[in-house]
Amino acid sequence: GQKRPLSDNQFIEGIKNGDQTILAKAITLIESTKKQDEVLSDEILNGFLKLSGNSIRIGITGVPGVGKSTFIEKLGLLLIKKGRKVAVLTVDPSSTVSKGSILGDKTRMPELLKSDNAFIRPTPTNNNLGGVAHKTRESIILCEAAGFDVVLVETVGVGQSETAVHGMVDFFLLLKLAGAGDDLQGIKRGIIELADVIAINKADGANLEIAKQEASIFKRALGLFPPKQNGWEPQVTYCSALHDEGIQELWSLIDEFNIKTKKNATFHKKREEQLQNWMLEIVEQTIKKNFYSNQKVKILQDQLLEKVLSKTISPKQAADMLLSSFDIKP
Amino acid sequence: GQKRPLSDNQFIEGIKNGDQTILAKAITLIESTKKQDEVLSDEILNGFLKLSGNSIRIGITGVPGVGKSTFIEKLGLLLIKKGRKVAVLTVDPSSTVSKGSILGDKTRMPELLKSDNAFIRPTPTNNNLGGVAHKTRESIILCEAAGFDVVLVETVGVGQSETAVHGMVDFFLLLKLAGAGDDLQGIKRGIIELADVIAINKADGANLEIAKQEASIFKRALGLFPPKQNGWEPQVTYCSALHDEGIQELWSLIDEFNIKTKKNATFHKKREEQLQNWMLEIVEQTIKKNFYSNQKVKILQDQLLEKVLSKTISPKQAADMLLSSFDIKP
Repeated sequence: GQKRPLSDNQFIEGIKNGDQTILAKAITLIESTKKQDEVLSDEILNGFLKLSGNSIRIGITGVPGVGKSTFIEKLGLLLIKKGRKVAVLTVDPSSTVSKGSILGDKTRMPELLKSDNAFIRPTPTNNNLGGVAHKTRESIILCEAAGFDVVLVETVGVGQSETAVHGMVDFFLLLKLAGAGDDLQGIKRGIIELADVIAINKADGANLEIAKQEASIFKRALGLFPPKQNGWEPQVTYCSALHDEGIQELWSLIDEFNIKTKKNATFHKKREEQLQNWMLEIVEQTIKKNFYSNQKVKILQDQLLEKVLSKTISPKQAADMLLSSFDIKP
Repeated sequence: GQKRPLSDNQFIEGIKNGDQTILAKAITLIESTKKQDEVLSDEILNGFLKLSGNSIRIGITGVPGVGKSTFIEKLGLLLIKKGRKVAVLTVDPSSTVSKGSILGDKTRMPELLKSDNAFIRPTPTNNNLGGVAHKTRESIILCEAAGFDVVLVETVGVGQSETAVHGMVDFFLLLKLAGAGDDLQGIKRGIIELADVIAINKADGANLEIAKQEASIFKRALGLFPPKQNGWEPQVTYCSALHDEGIQELWSLIDEFNIKTKKNATFHKKREEQLQNWMLEIVEQTIKKNFYSNQKVKILQDQLLEKVLSKTISPKQAADMLLSSFDIKP
């Protein structure tokens, strides 16, 4: 027969008990775009607000082929050995474009998947990156409520997803590929400016020396940027996820970052700013959506655009007319 | 005594006659943020809509020290010799931050300044980059109405100004410095993706060979990007503005671009898209401004933010409450 949907209490108790099946269902509910799921979804989330925040949130990015899955698996296993609980969330803009996801395949991390102390969740994306960011933030909160104290948010080096992920984590890690000569590609969109640590992966065998050289090039490049407000000087390191080398050293850097930014209170300040931005993003997106989905606006917009293109009226006049039709004073 | 302000007719006739003093005054009027200047400013602009568009609009960017002024002066003088009329507009975000402008000084182009066929206009910036873009677009239209058939929009390789300028020109030129090893800096924000031509300047003396090598590195880097929709393959060249070398070759590339994109109609299509974006930007900025400047919203926003930070309500709940107070259905 038909499965009965879970009640808000079942969701809340299940998550509190760290039940991964219920956690997964709750995230699915939150990701739902159906209007009728919204009330329950909001209720669950709001029930966990006070319980959230007790993790370090780490963003991880890098181009396809850099070895993110192997890296995350090895980092995750190390952390579990240290007694931590690790959640892995992915934000993958590629899945929208190609209908096949670069990151979505759970089987990428077979060892981690076996552990009860790891939770892996590929996030389906919708067209709206803001939307993705929105749901990922909520998933982070649910994972924290379920007791995960390290949340890894993985994204791929394509499009604007890095900026979105950067805006919802405490620490941002950029993975680079040793000896691949992808310097130009990797830094082309200012991702380097977002990084708290750059780790050159696949630094093994003949690539080890190259990786060391590249590390010093990146160190110099980082020196070109103004110092970060949080007092943290971005670091460059290298590792081989495949051979499980350099992962502990990298984690030590993250720990150092954690201690330093908590001590100078920038950790907390950043979280507060992120909460504020979260609120304002929803506000701005809703206003925009409301405006453009208005039937009157839609029709008028097309008519006015035609006049703008024929240079009968200016873009400003058209904008004013459009706004007036929505009772907004220009 | 008090100078009498010009009438709309005086403005329109003056600009039609190519009077540079009146053109300058019209731009000042358009840049004014005073409410009472808006009507006249709109009237003048609207009067010229049909006369606008008859120029090639060229965006020029590069970090401070790359030699933009010398380059623009030499390019301008070459074009004037060819019988063209050249307007130079600058968008300089640095002037807001430092109160001193990198680009604002008119004496940077003494030879060009002497010519009746050149018009140089440093644009003061306000904090809002959208605002800058908005006024620069309008200035372009006035310059075209005044008979300038090449409009150079100069900006500095800092911040988001390149993207803004890219959105209002037909052709985008990135100047690089030969032998300065600024590769990393110049490409860090994806500017390379915007460029239709990259020109390596100061390619003279010992730097000539270095510039040639760098040109081939950039050519390879450009090859990594997907082809542009307009069918134009970005080119890399080198020049020495100081020694007036390579400027004609560069102009030939711009000419080639002009002919090719006009032939395949992407020139016109891009202009139409830019007009549409212009309209929508004004709409979105106005909606946002209206919302945040509402007194009720301001007070409520602070109250709600406090509750969000103390985790009493979620960012979503706060956003909904804020929107409801403005009669916007979440």
